[in-house]
Amino acid sequence: MTDGTIAEDLAKEMKQTSVAEFFERNRHLLGYDSKIKAMLTCIKEIIDNCIDACEEMIYKSKKKGKDYVLPEINVRVRKIGGERYVVRVIDNGTGIVKGQIPHVFTRLLYGSKFYKEKQGRGQQGIGVSAAVLYSQLTTGKATHVVSKTSLRSPAYFYDLRIDTSKNRPEIVNSGMLERFKWDHGTQVEMEVVGTYLNKGEKSIYEYLRRTSIVNPHVRITFIDPEGKKIIFPRTSESVPKESKSIKPHPYGIEVGDLIRISKLTKSKTVKSFLTQEFSRVSSRTAKEILNKVGVNLRHMPGKISRDQAAEIVKLMQATKFMAPPLDCLSPIGSNTLRKSLSTGLDAEFVTTVSRNPSVYKGRPFLIEAAIAFGGSLSTDKQVKIIRFANKMPLQYDAGACAITEAISGIDWRRYGLNQTGGRGMPTGPAIILVHMGSTWIPYTSEGKSAIAHYNTIMKEMRLALQDCARDLRIYLSRKHKALKQQERISTFIKYSNESVKSLVILTGEKEEGIRKSFDKLIESNTGTSLAEAGGSEEEKSKSNDEFENIDEFIKEGDE
Amino acid sequence: MTDGTIAEDLAKEMKQTSVAEFFERNRHLLGYDSKIKAMLTCIKEIIDNCIDACEEMIYKSKKKGKDYVLPEINVRVRKIGGERYVVRVIDNGTGIVKGQIPHVFTRLLYGSKFYKEKQGRGQQGIGVSAAVLYSQLTTGKATHVVSKTSLRSPAYFYDLRIDTSKNRPEIVNSGMLERFKWDHGTQVEMEVVGTYLNKGEKSIYEYLRRTSIVNPHVRITFIDPEGKKIIFPRTSESVPKESKSIKPHPYGIEVGDLIRISKLTKSKTVKSFLTQEFSRVSSRTAKEILNKVGVNLRHMPGKISRDQAAEIVKLMQATKFMAPPLDCLSPIGSNTLRKSLSTGLDAEFVTTVSRNPSVYKGRPFLIEAAIAFGGSLSTDKQVKIIRFANKMPLQYDAGACAITEAISGIDWRRYGLNQTGGRGMPTGPAIILVHMGSTWIPYTSEGKSAIAHYNTIMKEMRLALQDCARDLRIYLSRKHKALKQQERISTFIKYSNESVKSLVILTGEKEEGIRKSFDKLIESNTGTSLAEAGGSEEEKSKSNDEFENIDEFIKEGDE
Repeated sequence: MTDGTIAEDLAKEMKQTSVAEFFERNRHLLGYDSKIKAMLTCIKEIIDNCIDACEEMIYKSKKKGKDYVLPEINVRVRKIGGERYVVRVIDNGTGIVKGQIPHVFTRLLYGSKFYKEKQGRGQQGIGVSAAVLYSQLTTGKATHVVSKTSLRSPAYFYDLRIDTSKNRPEIVNSGMLERFKWDHGTQVEMEVVGTYLNKGEKSIYEYLRRTSIVNPHVRITFIDPEGKKIIFPRTSESVPKESKSIKPHPYGIEVGDLIRISKLTKSKTVKSFLTQEFSRVSSRTAKEILNKVGVNLRHMPGKISRDQAAEIVKLMQATKFMAPPLDCLSPIGSNTLRKSLSTGLDAEFVTTVSRNPSVYKGRPFLIEAAIAFGGSLSTDKQVKIIRFANKMPLQYDAGACAITEAISGIDWRRYGLNQTGGRGMPTGPAIILVHMGSTWIPYTSEGKSAIAHYNTIMKEMRLALQDCARDLRIYLSRKHKALKQQERISTFIKYSNESVKSLVILTGEKEEGIRKSFDKLIESNTGTSLAEAGGSEEEKSKSNDEFENIDEFIKEGDE
Repeated sequence: MTDGTIAEDLAKEMKQTSVAEFFERNRHLLGYDSKIKAMLTCIKEIIDNCIDACEEMIYKSKKKGKDYVLPEINVRVRKIGGERYVVRVIDNGTGIVKGQIPHVFTRLLYGSKFYKEKQGRGQQGIGVSAAVLYSQLTTGKATHVVSKTSLRSPAYFYDLRIDTSKNRPEIVNSGMLERFKWDHGTQVEMEVVGTYLNKGEKSIYEYLRRTSIVNPHVRITFIDPEGKKIIFPRTSESVPKESKSIKPHPYGIEVGDLIRISKLTKSKTVKSFLTQEFSRVSSRTAKEILNKVGVNLRHMPGKISRDQAAEIVKLMQATKFMAPPLDCLSPIGSNTLRKSLSTGLDAEFVTTVSRNPSVYKGRPFLIEAAIAFGGSLSTDKQVKIIRFANKMPLQYDAGACAITEAISGIDWRRYGLNQTGGRGMPTGPAIILVHMGSTWIPYTSEGKSAIAHYNTIMKEMRLALQDCARDLRIYLSRKHKALKQQERISTFIKYSNESVKSLVILTGEKEEGIRKSFDKLIESNTGTSLAEAGGSEEEKSKSNDEFENIDEFIKEGDE
């Protein structure tokens, strides 16, 4: 049909863009907007998958009663001239079966984690294909992947490109290899245009260091472009408990979700559909809801109408359900948090908080926070912020992150830090760390570098931070009191020395006896043992340690 | 093949997610993370398309020598209980041909603008389908679309849903209608769950007001949920010049782009491919580059190897090319900027800057900025920031936006505003406005509410802001000087009055003559005409106006 209208001219230009073309043109959405960030993002995306694959290997092996090895990851960045680098990462995870390798590394939105409600590092099936896309876009080169799934199976390799117009693999080369570093695992090697930062907040080194600290069961070896080998050793032999997949919670469900799931379910009746596909929906509640909507309990789930679905969702929102099961979450834990703040830093005070899990949009999440104060930290600079999501560091887009907003929304002056106007980033000798663990982290973009501003999440962050901040205030006020007390005792001692001397002369008694009674007097007056008070610098820092312990005691009492 | 490995178990779980499913689950990426923002986003996405369609109608009609009508947009938000609203938007644009309606409104990444290098409001082909997706997800309802492409053609309607697993339309109902509001145009009506804000920075009202101000040729009628009708009148009859489509510039091209375009081009030889598919590549330069790479000039473009492509791109980066043609950009313009700051605000001083176009990643863009100062603005609050991209207001995600970072990176204390530490948001009685116009705005997410931090863009923003800030400083220092001068003159006048009186008595001369010579004396001493200096409040504000004019004169001299 040609009607000669302007709309007709426009219609000829209409076309479908593939998801790969979309991200090729919008690569800043994936974290490839600057050359520094791009290199880090490539490594980050590969390592997200590595650690997931290593942990998967352990959990599945345990279930099958098999032996397992702890995670090892080798990273090498080699400069090959100009701004060209070759990045290579090897892990000892599950490996990938031959037939899946091309798909996993080239198709965007392809993977096993998308509809799994499970706390993991990867979630969308975009990350590693996006890194391959970036490599191809900037260097035209194929990505070399080797994978081996068990001691007995051979290692297979592929050289892969992405056919962006189809979002499908283009296999340049493939075959079998004699040798692979480990019994099982995956190796990815790609050439990229990038800028390498040697150190600092946004460097690959810092990324690996932080990753290693919050994943103490992983050993990471890094060979930097100068050929220097840096080992981040394994500091714990114990594997974190597996975070479980859960069913979606009714509070997080919208009409569209209900309809989608109703078409995929294996349940035969609408009642079993509700109890089996969602968390915490009991048989009784399902019956109540369906009766109110007027749907027969034996109705086929795929046949419920949109209006019925809308009504079911509305009733589910209004019904009381237990919170989703929270053992699906895996926190970093207080000890590791403490270590992650104290390493290479002699802070005088560290406090940590792990909040109980909470729920946003039907998805469980938990917030952990920690503050380190004093010591070698600079007093007049903005406090340093360290952000983590599902145990991986976030180093970019701080301005867009809920963590940043939660921190700057607190009046830190009340807790002993400086802050102009009671809003914004505080200044002072402190580091603030926040971690969010969840079955689904709502990132602000596909590049996964900042957390979106959901109210419930912000609130939990605020509460965790305020908990830490209160500990800090108690510590600071005790420190202040201790200093005052010390001054008071010094004054007593000064005068008692004079008095003792005079009394020795006046009474003719021995100095020792008189001094003892004076000391007793001071002790009973100040409530402090003279053996503990005052003294050298060394003794002072001991007393600080003691206050830290007192603090911890108080915290435990509070909980 | 079943080898019993853990990788084999995982392989069974692998699957492709459709782009619609991806965004359904990640709707915060599209701007649907809160109920307030979601409602605004729906309207914004529809209106982006409306204004583009209205302007397209005008430009194409002009070319065909046909009459055209100026853009009219009617918006109505109706509350139908609880948090449910029905949003309806009608425009008098091109309309959409019958066969395309289902695709345009339901397929994500479908449209005519994706590979067009042209300044427009829509760019990805996501927006309006995402709004339909949100409506369907939250209410289960279909979206009702009516469109008519000319006076003679009938109006067609569709009730549409999205089959998210396929990213394809599901046509619930369709047919022909007798009546449509205008000779041509489109009407979209959808039901959504949302929260309606009556007023304020993030309200629909504010969005429409700002849209109307920077698009003065558009008339917008808004009926709010209370039934109140608000008209944002057309304040200009002249249509902004059409922004042209351009070819990509060699500096913005990467290996992947070159290869993609080489497969689509109609050029027969690689030489004509380079000169015809890219901006500013002359026949001579193309020849030079191809000779260096060692490719025959008559080679078929689709046959160049990846290595050759990589070499061509490398040489293109190292070659001097003219900047891309800049008439593809359409600025807001100084008058409209000034108006957009002054409406409803009696600022004492307004300055605007339109920078010359510049280029990021081979894409032309231009930055405009404006500052309003004083008058009824509050002195102790953070300055108000107004952001625009391609003539549409940005109201969310300020923290993630390059504009915010550019503003907070300037030491505003040097220009007369308060700012702690010379970084961060300034405080004082001011409004700062920034607009970016480009053939491709690099948004930080698909929700198009913040601009990504490309260095070249940040630099242009900084320069534009500093230009405005310098004007502000000149104004403030003149104002300060003028106050001093006035004080000085008042003192002179006070003493001259005394002296005149005494001299009249002493000399017996007439007061008028003596006063005249004193006035002359004061005028020559202060360099100020007494008729202009001092006086009532009214006169003072006149003098401010004069300074503003002087300022403009100086600015023109600077350029």
